[in-house]
Amino acid sequence: MSHNTFGHLFRVTTWGESHGPALGCVIDGCPPGIAFTLADIQHELDRRRPGKSRFVTQRREPDRVKVLSGFVPADDGETLTTTGTPISLMIENVDQRSKDYGEIARQFRPGHADYSYFAKYGLRDHRGGGRSSARETAARVAAGAIARKVVPGLTVRGALVAMGEKEIERANWDWDFIDDQDNPFFTPDPASVSVFSDYLDAIRKAGSSVGAVVEIVAEGVPAGLGAPIYAKLDQDIASAMMSINAVKGVEIGNGFEAARLTGEENADEMRMGNDGRPQFLSNHAGGVLGGISTGEPVVARFAVKPTSSILTPRRSVDIDGRDVDVITKGRHDPCVGIRAVPIGEAMLACVIADHYLRHRGQIGG
Amino acid sequence: MSHNTFGHLFRVTTWGESHGPALGCVIDGCPPGIAFTLADIQHELDRRRPGKSRFVTQRREPDRVKVLSGFVPADDGETLTTTGTPISLMIENVDQRSKDYGEIARQFRPGHADYSYFAKYGLRDHRGGGRSSARETAARVAAGAIARKVVPGLTVRGALVAMGEKEIERANWDWDFIDDQDNPFFTPDPASVSVFSDYLDAIRKAGSSVGAVVEIVAEGVPAGLGAPIYAKLDQDIASAMMSINAVKGVEIGNGFEAARLTGEENADEMRMGNDGRPQFLSNHAGGVLGGISTGEPVVARFAVKPTSSILTPRRSVDIDGRDVDVITKGRHDPCVGIRAVPIGEAMLACVIADHYLRHRGQIGG
Amino acid sequence: MSHNTFGHLFRVTTWGESHGPALGCVIDGCPPGIAFTLADIQHELDRRRPGKSRFVTQRREPDRVKVLSGFVPADDGETLTTTGTPISLMIENVDQRSKDYGEIARQFRPGHADYSYFAKYGLRDHRGGGRSSARETAARVAAGAIARKVVPGLTVRGALVAMGEKEIERANWDWDFIDDQDNPFFTPDPASVSVFSDYLDAIRKAGSSVGAVVEIVAEGVPAGLGAPIYAKLDQDIASAMMSINAVKGVEIGNGFEAARLTGEENADEMRMGNDGRPQFLSNHAGGVLGGISTGEPVVARFAVKPTSSILTPRRSVDIDGRDVDVITKGRHDPCVGIRAVPIGEAMLACVIADHYLRHRGQIGG
Amino acid sequence: MSHNTFGHLFRVTTWGESHGPALGCVIDGCPPGIAFTLADIQHELDRRRPGKSRFVTQRREPDRVKVLSGFVPADDGETLTTTGTPISLMIENVDQRSKDYGEIARQFRPGHADYSYFAKYGLRDHRGGGRSSARETAARVAAGAIARKVVPGLTVRGALVAMGEKEIERANWDWDFIDDQDNPFFTPDPASVSVFSDYLDAIRKAGSSVGAVVEIVAEGVPAGLGAPIYAKLDQDIASAMMSINAVKGVEIGNGFEAARLTGEENADEMRMGNDGRPQFLSNHAGGVLGGISTGEPVVARFAVKPTSSILTPRRSVDIDGRDVDVITKGRHDPCVGIRAVPIGEAMLACVIADHYLRHRGQIGG
Repeated sequence: MSHNTFGHLFRVTTWGESHGPALGCVIDGCPPGIAFTLADIQHELDRRRPGKSRFVTQRREPDRVKVLSGFVPADDGETLTTTGTPISLMIENVDQRSKDYGEIARQFRPGHADYSYFAKYGLRDHRGGGRSSARETAARVAAGAIARKVVPGLTVRGALVAMGEKEIERANWDWDFIDDQDNPFFTPDPASVSVFSDYLDAIRKAGSSVGAVVEIVAEGVPAGLGAPIYAKLDQDIASAMMSINAVKGVEIGNGFEAARLTGEENADEMRMGNDGRPQFLSNHAGGVLGGISTGEPVVARFAVKPTSSILTPRRSVDIDGRDVDVITKGRHDPCVGIRAVPIGEAMLACVIADHYLRHRGQIGG
Repeated sequence: MSHNTFGHLFRVTTWGESHGPALGCVIDGCPPGIAFTLADIQHELDRRRPGKSRFVTQRREPDRVKVLSGFVPADDGETLTTTGTPISLMIENVDQRSKDYGEIARQFRPGHADYSYFAKYGLRDHRGGGRSSARETAARVAAGAIARKVVPGLTVRGALVAMGEKEIERANWDWDFIDDQDNPFFTPDPASVSVFSDYLDAIRKAGSSVGAVVEIVAEGVPAGLGAPIYAKLDQDIASAMMSINAVKGVEIGNGFEAARLTGEENADEMRMGNDGRPQFLSNHAGGVLGGISTGEPVVARFAVKPTSSILTPRRSVDIDGRDVDVITKGRHDPCVGIRAVPIGEAMLACVIADHYLRHRGQIGG
Repeated sequence: MSHNTFGHLFRVTTWGESHGPALGCVIDGCPPGIAFTLADIQHELDRRRPGKSRFVTQRREPDRVKVLSGFVPADDGETLTTTGTPISLMIENVDQRSKDYGEIARQFRPGHADYSYFAKYGLRDHRGGGRSSARETAARVAAGAIARKVVPGLTVRGALVAMGEKEIERANWDWDFIDDQDNPFFTPDPASVSVFSDYLDAIRKAGSSVGAVVEIVAEGVPAGLGAPIYAKLDQDIASAMMSINAVKGVEIGNGFEAARLTGEENADEMRMGNDGRPQFLSNHAGGVLGGISTGEPVVARFAVKPTSSILTPRRSVDIDGRDVDVITKGRHDPCVGIRAVPIGEAMLACVIADHYLRHRGQIGG
Repeated sequence: MSHNTFGHLFRVTTWGESHGPALGCVIDGCPPGIAFTLADIQHELDRRRPGKSRFVTQRREPDRVKVLSGFVPADDGETLTTTGTPISLMIENVDQRSKDYGEIARQFRPGHADYSYFAKYGLRDHRGGGRSSARETAARVAAGAIARKVVPGLTVRGALVAMGEKEIERANWDWDFIDDQDNPFFTPDPASVSVFSDYLDAIRKAGSSVGAVVEIVAEGVPAGLGAPIYAKLDQDIASAMMSINAVKGVEIGNGFEAARLTGEENADEMRMGNDGRPQFLSNHAGGVLGGISTGEPVVARFAVKPTSSILTPRRSVDIDGRDVDVITKGRHDPCVGIRAVPIGEAMLACVIADHYLRHRGQIGG
């Protein structure tokens, strides 16, 4: 029973608080013989890194990763090869500035975990959320960079598909645009950049925040991953996505829309393909049927609530039982959904790596 | 790593196929000293039982439960008291009629787990879905009846809130109407019965099917259950709901709607109550903040896809790689979402019982 | 965290008390496609069954096993083939005679789990030990019969090698004699039968009891099972053997004798064999080095204490805090070590099956 | 399913190789509010540290521990208080000198894990054993220092009770002498120091090695920890001890000696004590009955084999299938059993902390 571990065979245990000296993770169960570089991990961390545009928190963290165990170096001086032993990754915290949190150390910020955390532990790490801080997700992203290498041929990509009341146009979808330097939103729709910019600038200047919807797509997932009952692939995806800070909903394939459809509309028909293998004629299922992958792209979406750190005073109480009005200053993301894109990718990569190893090993119900 | 177990301290392992002699479950970790009766379990099983109206499958299963271990009988001849040892529950299958499935034993039914199941195991239990059958959920409902007793003061209730394109009117919500004998839909809105009846009759007569949205509400959940990272209460709820057959989406509180809101709109404010305890002024969070319960009602919704067993011929392939047109006869639910209501309740009760025991035992991050 | 489950990929959850209606187990994780018969399981149960000679408890239990799920029947009417879904096995209790225990229902029997069990749960199942009863081991033996089939080429055999102060002569070792009908002791040494008979008759008639040492040997274990740190093969064997009732010590290969040896004496040398594969020239290691199997026979021994149910009055206290003198009547084994032989075999088979599946699936440190 | 984690609620995941940059562990599940200092951990590490006498390896490692997460500092500048979040501990490797291992990088050293490790992974970390190295135990000892604080009133102490053919005299037992500066053996018997010194000097000078027996005693263990079936306290102790490098046997209380006794001799009688609580009149059971603690001291012993690194040439094969004669130079312990004392203490402390948390939380069978 692990509070800080996810995965079963590809197990990631994260540690570290936002205001301690460092954070990191231990990956246990990664097979031996997998080649990766520090740059592979750093690339993903950089995508998630704060301070890159005016639309994300201005906290400045270089997020330099160190690999402390689990590999042997190759002669090229760059490639690391896994040995099957635990991979320990560490990222030092640099820009902690915990005084930002001083004035609200004894207040329960509405929408934050402050009150529930206090109800659980009877104490708070007033320096910025402790383990509830989104800084923990840096460790996930680092682990995800390794997970991507575990399954041959796997590609995991994500996109922001809605921000508040604004949605992208699916007809414009361009995966190559996601990491474009002129795209601070991970949107797949080039036309949406100016829309999102204007919208979020207004929100940011108002000291407000807004939610978002993120879509993650994994291609190259072999058919047969998952299980029919309590190790369903979509079940573990739901759990993984819901574990991301501020996520309030998860759906696979047609998702909630499926509830509105008839059996004729929703079921994906099949025909034999030219390569002699069954082909699905559509992918309403999002790549999962009965908890098991079909070989089609796995499509998951999740809803991110607006960050609750806003400048508008909100009614709350403090730890001493007094009514207070709370204003959350500090450096916050006006739309945390943006940086949730690489995090969602990492989580999906980890889940698929885990199920890939489970499937490779054991075929059991 | 368990394929057929859910829960960590309150652990339920289910077994049995739809066409074998029996099905059941073993509950491991239920505390000693909890009193229950066979009638408590039977009551929940009867709510889920097939064959009760024309809107659900006509399979006739009495679903009589036997308790084989884990209790001592009391002198009243009815009450059973748990001893802290594993509780083994068994339900015999009666109306199996596996010939219904004969003609499609070698076809991959679109929308069903047939193809993905075959990709995983390399074999099929052609007698009706094997473990993918919704009959497995009888064991969950039986376990849920025990789980409800574990947390003092807990109430878990569910309702069907949408069927296909039809939704209930929330202003009409009446919990007492849910189990009314004139309510074959678990709808909380008396005015919706005729709407749903007409709608589903048309679908049923057309040999079609339709999806649904189910909402489950748990009241009396203590604040402090869950954890900030990978043992989040909402994460386990998402996993539990997504493990129910045909579920494609899960949300907590405002859910996907939260993505459209601003921080001001979404965060729940607080004030000290007359009883000297903090009171939430709203419950957009659905009773969970940062993965930990707030003490407010826990509200989860899930989307059920239309059952894929329909009379309209659908294109598919068979196990020999031939294109076929599939018609799924047999006795099926035109809207499996209806019977998902007691199942969703059972799953939420089990998750909360599990986290209640985790919280009671250990306080760890 | 499971109190009633052992194994990780080949998971066995047992349930049932000695005085309830039935006992059994659920095996989760058994691969599909494994053929077995009811007779395979019954054969092992019969070896463990009470009432077969004057040297074991006279409780009469037919121990007929039922297989409730997890298989498809073959056309021969006998063979069952696993489907990869949970295998539910049930054995009904017949000869419960719980009145035997009436007079000691409120006493803590010295050497029994009565006091510690009460300290844990705050209650007792006075009808015969509840889960502490050795009847639970019938479920293990049934599970072991399946486990033996999981690893191709695996043979697991056991023997009683010492009873009290009497030991077998290793020079006389004859595996074929173990299940001889004139061998009520599972001894591998035909010459020991009369020695053990005379010795145990005297103990039995004195109302006393005696301990034993059991040795289990698994042949056909592939090299490479286990892991270097906390999933060591010998670690799981130690855990499995220590989980058997009344076991107080476990050793692998040379075991405690290794503490008396030098490095030259203890390490097993190797040479290339005629088949081009490395050959060990001895097996002091008992088939495990650094937690990982070497391909040599896995040899485990465990010490069984004398059963604490004896006719000599022993000083104790009762549940009300009064000093009492306890005499344990009822039908007990004068040497529980005898029937521990098939149980030890079953446990070793389960551990090896589990590690075989772990190794097949994942190679991780 | 964790290869590098032990414990269930008090979970320790270790990472790091003997020749990588660092090693460490993450402790997940430690309750909040527990006070400790760096000196507490360092004290235990110093007891285990190599290079302290001529009887242990001359590798020079300062073994300075860093605490990276999971605590808040107190005002005194020394005390750290746990927050309930994961505690990350790191120890940097300093004196690696991996060239010592160069010549045997392709040989399978007899008695070492080289061959079995290769059979598992298909590769070796030729730089000194990788995860099979005893350096990993530094992380365990650090974790054990925290575990000792979890259970109020717990004392865990260990002693070397036999080295090769030499045994201590139990009548001389003096706990205070264990950590005496003139005691390089953790022996409790002052008279044994010269015996062990002479004996081990001879063995060391001969380039040989010898085994040992270690005894660990935990006092202040509350009654009621453990479970009757597969979460037995002694089962987890057996697993923990067997997980220590070179351990080949484990026993509790009377252990293997119990097999030679009668029920009258072995069972511990009880009487009501003057304090109105039941008192055991002996402790043959070693503090555990039926898998559950009795409140008496928990007594475990384990056998450590002689280290297989010796100067005498031994027959073996290499990775290319050639017969070779192996001499293991380098800096090795002539009796690894000595330094196993603080390691065994740490493991027992971790097991008891784990069961303490399990018991506190849940009462289940």
